[in-house]
Amino acid sequence: MRPVTIERGWSAQAEGSALISFGATRVLCTASFTPGVPRWLAGKGTGWVTAEYSMLPRSTNERMQRESVKGRIGGRTHEISRLIGRSLRAVIDTKALGENTIVIDCDVLQADGGTRTASITGAYVALAEAVAWARARGHIAQKARPLIDSVAAVSVGIVDGVPMSDLAYVEDSRAETDMNVVVTGAGDFVEVQGTAEGAPFARAELDALLDLALVSAAELAELQRAVLHEGE
Amino acid sequence: MRPVTIERGWSAQAEGSALISFGATRVLCTASFTPGVPRWLAGKGTGWVTAEYSMLPRSTNERMQRESVKGRIGGRTHEISRLIGRSLRAVIDTKALGENTIVIDCDVLQADGGTRTASITGAYVALAEAVAWARARGHIAQKARPLIDSVAAVSVGIVDGVPMSDLAYVEDSRAETDMNVVVTGAGDFVEVQGTAEGAPFARAELDALLDLALVSAAELAELQRAVLHEGE
Amino acid sequence: MRPVTIERGWSAQAEGSALISFGATRVLCTASFTPGVPRWLAGKGTGWVTAEYSMLPRSTNERMQRESVKGRIGGRTHEISRLIGRSLRAVIDTKALGENTIVIDCDVLQADGGTRTASITGAYVALAEAVAWARARGHIAQKARPLIDSVAAVSVGIVDGVPMSDLAYVEDSRAETDMNVVVTGAGDFVEVQGTAEGAPFARAELDALLDLALVSAAELAELQRAVLHEGE
Amino acid sequence: MRPVTIERGWSAQAEGSALISFGATRVLCTASFTPGVPRWLAGKGTGWVTAEYSMLPRSTNERMQRESVKGRIGGRTHEISRLIGRSLRAVIDTKALGENTIVIDCDVLQADGGTRTASITGAYVALAEAVAWARARGHIAQKARPLIDSVAAVSVGIVDGVPMSDLAYVEDSRAETDMNVVVTGAGDFVEVQGTAEGAPFARAELDALLDLALVSAAELAELQRAVLHEGE
Amino acid sequence: MRPVTIERGWSAQAEGSALISFGATRVLCTASFTPGVPRWLAGKGTGWVTAEYSMLPRSTNERMQRESVKGRIGGRTHEISRLIGRSLRAVIDTKALGENTIVIDCDVLQADGGTRTASITGAYVALAEAVAWARARGHIAQKARPLIDSVAAVSVGIVDGVPMSDLAYVEDSRAETDMNVVVTGAGDFVEVQGTAEGAPFARAELDALLDLALVSAAELAELQRAVLHEGE
Amino acid sequence: MRPVTIERGWSAQAEGSALISFGATRVLCTASFTPGVPRWLAGKGTGWVTAEYSMLPRSTNERMQRESVKGRIGGRTHEISRLIGRSLRAVIDTKALGENTIVIDCDVLQADGGTRTASITGAYVALAEAVAWARARGHIAQKARPLIDSVAAVSVGIVDGVPMSDLAYVEDSRAETDMNVVVTGAGDFVEVQGTAEGAPFARAELDALLDLALVSAAELAELQRAVLHEGE
Repeated sequence: MRPVTIERGWSAQAEGSALISFGATRVLCTASFTPGVPRWLAGKGTGWVTAEYSMLPRSTNERMQRESVKGRIGGRTHEISRLIGRSLRAVIDTKALGENTIVIDCDVLQADGGTRTASITGAYVALAEAVAWARARGHIAQKARPLIDSVAAVSVGIVDGVPMSDLAYVEDSRAETDMNVVVTGAGDFVEVQGTAEGAPFARAELDALLDLALVSAAELAELQRAVLHEGE
Repeated sequence: MRPVTIERGWSAQAEGSALISFGATRVLCTASFTPGVPRWLAGKGTGWVTAEYSMLPRSTNERMQRESVKGRIGGRTHEISRLIGRSLRAVIDTKALGENTIVIDCDVLQADGGTRTASITGAYVALAEAVAWARARGHIAQKARPLIDSVAAVSVGIVDGVPMSDLAYVEDSRAETDMNVVVTGAGDFVEVQGTAEGAPFARAELDALLDLALVSAAELAELQRAVLHEGE
Repeated sequence: MRPVTIERGWSAQAEGSALISFGATRVLCTASFTPGVPRWLAGKGTGWVTAEYSMLPRSTNERMQRESVKGRIGGRTHEISRLIGRSLRAVIDTKALGENTIVIDCDVLQADGGTRTASITGAYVALAEAVAWARARGHIAQKARPLIDSVAAVSVGIVDGVPMSDLAYVEDSRAETDMNVVVTGAGDFVEVQGTAEGAPFARAELDALLDLALVSAAELAELQRAVLHEGE
Repeated sequence: MRPVTIERGWSAQAEGSALISFGATRVLCTASFTPGVPRWLAGKGTGWVTAEYSMLPRSTNERMQRESVKGRIGGRTHEISRLIGRSLRAVIDTKALGENTIVIDCDVLQADGGTRTASITGAYVALAEAVAWARARGHIAQKARPLIDSVAAVSVGIVDGVPMSDLAYVEDSRAETDMNVVVTGAGDFVEVQGTAEGAPFARAELDALLDLALVSAAELAELQRAVLHEGE
Repeated sequence: MRPVTIERGWSAQAEGSALISFGATRVLCTASFTPGVPRWLAGKGTGWVTAEYSMLPRSTNERMQRESVKGRIGGRTHEISRLIGRSLRAVIDTKALGENTIVIDCDVLQADGGTRTASITGAYVALAEAVAWARARGHIAQKARPLIDSVAAVSVGIVDGVPMSDLAYVEDSRAETDMNVVVTGAGDFVEVQGTAEGAPFARAELDALLDLALVSAAELAELQRAVLHEGE
Repeated sequence: MRPVTIERGWSAQAEGSALISFGATRVLCTASFTPGVPRWLAGKGTGWVTAEYSMLPRSTNERMQRESVKGRIGGRTHEISRLIGRSLRAVIDTKALGENTIVIDCDVLQADGGTRTASITGAYVALAEAVAWARARGHIAQKARPLIDSVAAVSVGIVDGVPMSDLAYVEDSRAETDMNVVVTGAGDFVEVQGTAEGAPFARAELDALLDLALVSAAELAELQRAVLHEGE
């Protein structure tokens, strides 16, 4: 894995925030807490967590057109936003959250591969900050435990026949198989998304990638824990 | 698995077509062949295969608003269209296809769970028909073999602790884990997409689901083969 | 006229449905019944019937781009959707319907001319099914008669100087004058839309086309009646 | 008919223009001539005439939202724009026009019923001015006769059982049947669009309306002729 | 300054209206009064004034595409709409207006430079008419004075080194510096917007332009006063 | 003025970049250099500089909806993007730039007032870096001087009767008059935009604000110079 750093509290305004780096990849994750839920959830006693992902136009090597200028959000952006949201909801007890909403924004400032896994890993830290913020102000009951576990994500792939973790952009484009794995702190799977970039892959390769993903995810979970304890 | 039927040549106008049913789920798959490729591929000697997925507004139990009326395509539609396209490209040798384009349309006429896996499985049959059509008319060289293998997809999930294949809508909404697996005729993986709907899932559950998916995919590959041989 | 067939109850989910064929033209019509009316009608004691028309991208000889992908509905689609809605409302007593809404979807699966007239003719059958469904479940009073009459539509045109009914696509493109006529079961006009494709047309030609349209519409009304009595 | 006036040359910038009034209804029609044709027509030696219709937001009794603000053009606007375009093309010999394009804009400044028929009638005058402008500057050959005939439109309806021509808004909303008829200077039909607003209408009513429409259209053709001769 | 004329009451339907000409520039300004305010203002006891600006497609020398056809409003249109709204609100006491909304529409019928300043100057007259209309009907209290002052706007620029007021299009495109100044009847500034078209401008030039703007604005204020007294 | 810092070269990928802070306001400015110009400029021997401004959704105290999600860019965003572009073009000699394009992106990471003036001031640094980058690689001739001067912007306002420079958000919302002034290194004006937030302002107030703006802009120009010399 490339060096991973997480800078907490980067934003002075958001209820939770983290600037996460996986090598040269840098994602700003903010969590916005608001009392109340969208209309379709009102009165059910449960909260809501959702996420939006976006890349700055010059986060990449060649400038991309802004989706606001195009007037619509592309398929890839949609996919990743939904993935981040599902990953976070897997470790949230929405009953314990109460009728509150947390929106996570993951904005990629610089992209060098692995932006979706960095986003999930950083988003968890921002989410945890926002939950703490809300408990401190009484929006969430003192005894409630809305966070069931931590969650982190890692990309794994096979490059020149060798399973590797956290691929940078150049490696990623050479990978034969590319897999994004979302794992809880307890080591269970939340999402497994594997795609054959070149040739379809055999069961044995899949197994090797899953083994590697669990190891790397455990390291990320450890880092998240350390970073969140710092402030205490 | 629910009863699966594939009716070839449903459309009088498309170069390839199949009406596929997985139980009450019915998807019309058409393949449109056109000589030439999009501008960004021109002059490279390779072809292009892409797919679009859509649901009729009353294919579901409650009427959905049309995406054309909303003025934009939702995240789920985008995701599934991209998945179908990637799955088909995994079994296409684009060099052998030459500078030709095949667009697959998967329109869900009736939905009762498993529409994305039915779409992929039916799309392959429409694609194979279109390749045969193009070869018969000389758009593809007689000796070229653009289709490397067949491809089929199956959804698997754990319901009440039991791994099950091809879930209907009612079962699907009770599933604890939901996985879509795309497999070649040779039994290799093209895509593995697993999502924890309820609790995160352990490695052992994942293994059981993958085993089951390979068995079901082999049955679908056999059916595809039989259906495509009929016309010969 | 080309052979016309109407298959009732094609959809397992809609409250009313019909798959109608005019020669090679095939349109799936579904009727979705929901209690309540749009906000602008609420509290007036009257119901609402509206319609949406769309063509599958490969219903035509050359693939068309989806309107959902374009991000907007074209003028022709708008025009036909409005025409279907007006035609159905002409035979509906909205007071007798009560504060209920019926949305008709006409999706063209295969197009060979006359898709708008096939849509109207099939839509009436789906509408009648939905009304019967709603009465059976008590959403509409037993004595209420929301359907005042039946309605059917036919295209007529002059080809090589001869008035003809229900033109297939090839004939239609050769027609000098093209007219769509919507007629009630009682033989009165709901809509008359005539367009000079080539030279403007004289009063005598218009009269000949209207005569022919009334004859063909009566045949369609008879077929609708037969099909709707089958199930009783 | 209400008093009709046509003021030619209202715009200092357009190649042709007319401000037409039907009673309190006022429409500004401009014709924009440009050498060349859209790409899909290029090289065929024929020209192109098209039209766009729009209403100012406060042309009506209650302010309407702008379609530019809504971000999309409504069905009614589409329908009328297409109707105006078809009507004008019926009297244009596109071969004689050569590879030139004329775009007609009909902007309703004040609406009191009959805006679409006023638009067509005024658009013809603007079109004729633009053709004369282009001939004077050599864009169209001296001998070419791109205008085959004149064209005008009138709305007719049955109010309290009596056929009436050119209905103002208040009458129009009371009309049982509403018909827009587009007629050439020679008295032939270009379009006939009749809609039963209330009860479906019988053949005899249709005949009465068509008779009346021909009489009114002849008056409008006479006025167009007079206005266009003024400037000579 | 070019000859300026203001024709009051041009629209039979709007609560206030003015057709203003600055030379060949002609703008139709209408004011639409409605009781009530947008939801975000409700219950605060204050009213709302806003404005929308638009150009007819052939108001300019070359036809522009409609923003409704493009599906979005351009940056320039947005800017000018906002400027008009701010300018009018500067002379409105929203408390005295009560919970009422006035929407001003400025539609450019013909453009020859200075459309935004003509719009503001004409909009004030339409606004004043609408306020009078509302007071006459009791929507605004007899004693309330919602209009604090009048407001007018003028463009000034430096052409060939000479400060000039109210530039026509040809002069405007030759101007080295272009400034739009919005001034109250009392001679205070509401907006000052200066842009260096060519070389940046020195403080002395800015002062000369501001002096000129105040003189011209005073003339416009005098004209507005005269026009509004006419009807009394 | 609040403390201003400019961090050059923040982005590893852009040809020029600067992270600028005005107090708690932080804007990431990147410059993307590409050989070639938009089609409408091609073959004229001149280059093009343009800018886009955007705010991250949680750069503000309450989360804003993304413009990409809304599907359109708001008026304020349009206005500021255009202002930044005009300001930069005022100090660019497009002939000397040659047929090259530089796009500046200003993304607000944290907003506490003055984001548009911070954007312009930082954008100039990114632009200067990109010009240096292009000269070093031979895209711009060694002798060419595309940058005529530097440019910086400052907001000034009157709070409690006292003219103040670089207002933070809280002060800004209390300001009676708000003015954004764009000034070259030589001390000439590029843009002057003053708006009366509360009461219209007198000539004397305007003069005081302009005096203050020139002083503050000179300090910013000095800082820009220092920052750009650092790397040499």
